Amino acid sequence: MVQFLNSDAPDFEARFTALLSMKREDSPEVDDIVAGIIADVRARGDAALCELTEKFDRMALTPDRLAFTEAEIDAEIAKVSAAEREALELAAARIEAYHRRQMPEDQSWTDETGATLGWRWSAVGAAGLYVPGGLASYPSSVLMNAIPAKVAGVQRLVITAPTPDGIANPLVLLAARLSAVETIYRIGGAQAVAALAYGTETIRPVDKITGPGNAFVAAAKRRVFGRVGIDMIAGPSEILVIADGENDPDWIALDLLSQAEHDESAQSILITTDADFGQAVARAVEKRLETLERRAIAGASWRDYGAIITVRDLEEAAALTDRIAPEHLELCVPDPEALAAQISHAGAMFLGKWTPEAIGDYVGGPNHVLPTARSARFSSGLSVMDFVKRTTMARMTPEALRAIGPAAETLARSESLEAHGLSVTARLRQLN
Amino acid sequence: MVQFLNSDAPDFEARFTALLSMKREDSPEVDDIVAGIIADVRARGDAALCELTEKFDRMALTPDRLAFTEAEIDAEIAKVSAAEREALELAAARIEAYHRRQMPEDQSWTDETGATLGWRWSAVGAAGLYVPGGLASYPSSVLMNAIPAKVAGVQRLVITAPTPDGIANPLVLLAARLSAVETIYRIGGAQAVAALAYGTETIRPVDKITGPGNAFVAAAKRRVFGRVGIDMIAGPSEILVIADGENDPDWIALDLLSQAEHDESAQSILITTDADFGQAVARAVEKRLETLERRAIAGASWRDYGAIITVRDLEEAAALTDRIAPEHLELCVPDPEALAAQISHAGAMFLGKWTPEAIGDYVGGPNHVLPTARSARFSSGLSVMDFVKRTTMARMTPEALRAIGPAAETLARSESLEAHGLSVTARLRQLN
Repeated sequence: MVQFLNSDAPDFEARFTALLSMKREDSPEVDDIVAGIIADVRARGDAALCELTEKFDRMALTPDRLAFTEAEIDAEIAKVSAAEREALELAAARIEAYHRRQMPEDQSWTDETGATLGWRWSAVGAAGLYVPGGLASYPSSVLMNAIPAKVAGVQRLVITAPTPDGIANPLVLLAARLSAVETIYRIGGAQAVAALAYGTETIRPVDKITGPGNAFVAAAKRRVFGRVGIDMIAGPSEILVIADGENDPDWIALDLLSQAEHDESAQSILITTDADFGQAVARAVEKRLETLERRAIAGASWRDYGAIITVRDLEEAAALTDRIAPEHLELCVPDPEALAAQISHAGAMFLGKWTPEAIGDYVGGPNHVLPTARSARFSSGLSVMDFVKRTTMARMTPEALRAIGPAAETLARSESLEAHGLSVTARLRQLN
Repeated sequence: MVQFLNSDAPDFEARFTALLSMKREDSPEVDDIVAGIIADVRARGDAALCELTEKFDRMALTPDRLAFTEAEIDAEIAKVSAAEREALELAAARIEAYHRRQMPEDQSWTDETGATLGWRWSAVGAAGLYVPGGLASYPSSVLMNAIPAKVAGVQRLVITAPTPDGIANPLVLLAARLSAVETIYRIGGAQAVAALAYGTETIRPVDKITGPGNAFVAAAKRRVFGRVGIDMIAGPSEILVIADGENDPDWIALDLLSQAEHDESAQSILITTDADFGQAVARAVEKRLETLERRAIAGASWRDYGAIITVRDLEEAAALTDRIAPEHLELCVPDPEALAAQISHAGAMFLGKWTPEAIGDYVGGPNHVLPTARSARFSSGLSVMDFVKRTTMARMTPEALRAIGPAAETLARSESLEAHGLSVTARLRQLN
């Protein structure tokens, strides 16, 4: 049975805090194993990659077969139905249109001293996208990771996608081709992350690694962070729906279940101003759980981590939302913009009852790689910004240096950094 | 003796690669110690903080004295000279003016299906800035970390600044006050990072931690990453100067030394088109090293990691620069903008001979917290962007859902995520 909370209840604060601090993920002690795998790939390159792939993915591999050939990709893509291809192309076009607007602009200006200041953006040189294998191998995630990189102007874009038992996902390969991916390697796990970060004889290292993965992949990304850039360490998915009583309970139930079906550790929460509506949604969820294909997973997630919270009003809903800082937030109320304006911390907002979260997973346009585990307090979803970096620019004139140089000399002296000060002094001396 | 390289030499590629892959930092095995400190602070809070401070900073501390009082800050600030105060105020004003231009804008538009899309930026709730103690306690770093947070609109801004043997740096306290810092805690090390990430009885946790620190601080930041946001793991400082023969060798020598004096692990490199000029700079460095206060540090850095590289032309200089991806890049050539346009990877550029790098450390305006160790390939210096996050927004109309919903249903089916599809199907059904 899902848990019900009511903000009027005396034990509400204690129960809400417990809900917030629920530990939803096992943290298996994989760090030592991952350190060993990375060291092995660094030391032995392709040979290690092939052995590890045979061990973990039950598939014999040789260095010349690390990458899919164009012919192999063609053969797999031919299996995709026309309807699936069209849907994927629509998704790709909409995601690209949305992300094109994210390209930041260079700036340059001259200040009152005559100094020219500004900055310039440029693309990351090469990016590697990790695509999980098996059940969680989602073509939509390929689009969501690769298209921002493509829009940013990343020169070289590669994918690692394990093919356990040799089985590839044709839609993943099509999504990669639609996103201008250069090479697809059939490797996964910590060994794939190590290969992308350090390179091997056949795999050139990249500058940035993004994409979801299991605990091994997450630990490997954390370890190579600094050597390369990474996007984030993603946790299990979450949705928070705020709905008043004027909604169809079945719609809201399906929205909650569309996160719950991802993973037994996913979390779906409803906040409502109408306790009876909350009960109706709970019944609708149970009804849908009778027939849903992934009812075992969705049911476990809903039972263990789901919650229905009744609040007095939408102000209270907004305040609780900021404490939850949800990955996905649906606002099923008559004036969702007004409610949105009261909330600071959420990865993505879906406004109004005609915007189910699943639209955002596929074809809405915004990215579906979003901050989990309350990290929307301090971080954003994936975007073009993850694939560009800024170089700041400054050009002094003699006059500008005369105006601000003495302050630099003073501060350098305060910090006992003599050469810093002298580099200004030597120039100022020539101006006198 | 500093090493000389010449791009015409047969061993150039081997020597340049060796220069690139030089390991400049000891990586002491501090990770276990740091894990223990974090666990201790999480378990025992203030008591652990006070004990660890007594142990590492040789200073008795009680929970009620963790934070500086306003009176204590006033007393310290009174020690600052008028010239230092003015210099710090000029720096703060210029840094703030530069960073104000970085505030990103919200966007919202309606697409051809009638869907409203966009995103909204909001500030991180609370930020904690780590300020090192002792020799590397730089007021300029306080400004560079705190002002972007203030400009971003961060509501609560706190600093941890260890005071070894009880000695505070008055300029650090003044810089904190100029940057609207709310509270200054006299703690440091991994224990300060743990307190900021997890909170104690007296210290409220923050959402984001930035600022430089030693190996313990860096390891602690890496460990709490995910629980809170962090800026970057900074390594020793670097400068690359590209200069033709038409420069004053002493100016360039001082620019190289202004990085070298930071740290024995700092790296200063000159690339020049004029071999004789390179020799003249080497002589000028040796001459300055005779009298420089920090000659022991600067001399060790220059001897161990410095390099003077002679190239055929500026195109070659640009290509090598992108391989180095320097933190600081000075372009001492007649047309620095043209040269800058050929270079992608650098944290900050200083254009023309009147722009010594030290200007950027203090009063230029751009941030001096910049990517080191070749990470300018994929990351940027600190900015307002580090203290804001984006929430994506989407609002479908019934017509928009009719237009793009079917593609979402198709993709959900392909990914075997039935509830995702049904959440769209249920709504579309009502439209028919």
